[in-house]
Amino acid sequence: MDGFTVGGMAKGAGMIHPCLATMLVVVTTDYPLDADEADWFLRPTVESTFNRISVDGDTSTNDAVLLLANGASGVERTPERDASFAEALREVCADLARKLVADGEGATVVLEIGVTGAVSDREAEAIARRIATSPLVKTAAFGRDPNWGRVLGAAGSAPIDGTFAQLDPDRVTLAFNGVAVYADGAPTGERPTLEGVSCAVDLDLGLGTGAAAYLASDLTYDYVRINAEYTT
Amino acid sequence: MDGFTVGGMAKGAGMIHPCLATMLVVVTTDYPLDADEADWFLRPTVESTFNRISVDGDTSTNDAVLLLANGASGVERTPERDASFAEALREVCADLARKLVADGEGATVVLEIGVTGAVSDREAEAIARRIATSPLVKTAAFGRDPNWGRVLGAAGSAPIDGTFAQLDPDRVTLAFNGVAVYADGAPTGERPTLEGVSCAVDLDLGLGTGAAAYLASDLTYDYVRINAEYTT
Repeated sequence: MDGFTVGGMAKGAGMIHPCLATMLVVVTTDYPLDADEADWFLRPTVESTFNRISVDGDTSTNDAVLLLANGASGVERTPERDASFAEALREVCADLARKLVADGEGATVVLEIGVTGAVSDREAEAIARRIATSPLVKTAAFGRDPNWGRVLGAAGSAPIDGTFAQLDPDRVTLAFNGVAVYADGAPTGERPTLEGVSCAVDLDLGLGTGAAAYLASDLTYDYVRINAEYTT
Repeated sequence: MDGFTVGGMAKGAGMIHPCLATMLVVVTTDYPLDADEADWFLRPTVESTFNRISVDGDTSTNDAVLLLANGASGVERTPERDASFAEALREVCADLARKLVADGEGATVVLEIGVTGAVSDREAEAIARRIATSPLVKTAAFGRDPNWGRVLGAAGSAPIDGTFAQLDPDRVTLAFNGVAVYADGAPTGERPTLEGVSCAVDLDLGLGTGAAAYLASDLTYDYVRINAEYTT
């Protein structure tokens, strides 16, 4: 409708974590952009997509996200069309980022971690990342257990600026797949079933307006097998 | 010989990581100490023993290290005897800390991680902790693979003060069980066999005099089983 196309492809598996990993992503478009302009569109998109996923918390040195723009669509750039392109780029990158996690080594479920109500976006991100990398949260996800204690335990140990992110157990609400399992300082007694290939984990801290999202895979026998059997 | 005794007992398993975990430790002595004095001896000892171990990188809220001192030995405190007591306390705590790791959920090997030559002790500690918590290092340990790439990759991604610890691949020497596998900017070609219940991982950064030690368990099928089968 806007006269241009955005395509993309990605290769991941393990070592998937912010600052990127053994990952190669190529995004193509016929929207007209020079190198600096492509960079301007791509960086914030990477920050909210590829830098918000974690398979194992390990990173690699050889990663790349490339945006190739040849202008072949012949459309004129306008502020409206730029906004439309930015949104299309975000959708493609978010889709690829999610597929990287779903395709992560040994993964059986994608955890869609949402943190809201933090005192700042930075604290929300630190908490979301800590939940996304906790072996206890990730093994509970493999066991399809709505384990509120492990999520809150991880959240409460999120490191930030040499100390811990702020969390008040009495103000926290935690939901799995939309069902609150912890609220008003106590477990609610609800026990949602966690089936399927994705699981929403929403933590509202009740402290402020900071928010962050993260995608993570679970920790499984196959993750161990793949990485223990491999030898140099 | 110094006329007093130090004993101890510990309970751990999972959630073992600095800031402590689901861990209970009681150390007893007949050395004469009041509460403040016991605290003075215990804190630095905990810092170098129980705060330098990791089973899974997860922490818990209910931990305790207690030092009970009833003075029943009847010995007089002297500077020399205090030094002797501090050393005995350190030995008991280091032994218990090691046993906590060896007894960690699913553990088959204790990684004895030593980092030297860092620009500071803090950077050495950050690097040692990053190695101790890397799923890739810990699965390689389970596979008994002297995987220098995973250790250096973890070391190079150690977070400190919002950036990364300093590491120059050309100055690094990495040894498994005393056999250098990486030196002078390249793998040495040596391939030590990693059998038995412990494995020394020594990383000399060649940059300064900072040093730190860490004990960690490996990441195994049994760790996943124990933590995925458990339900709330």
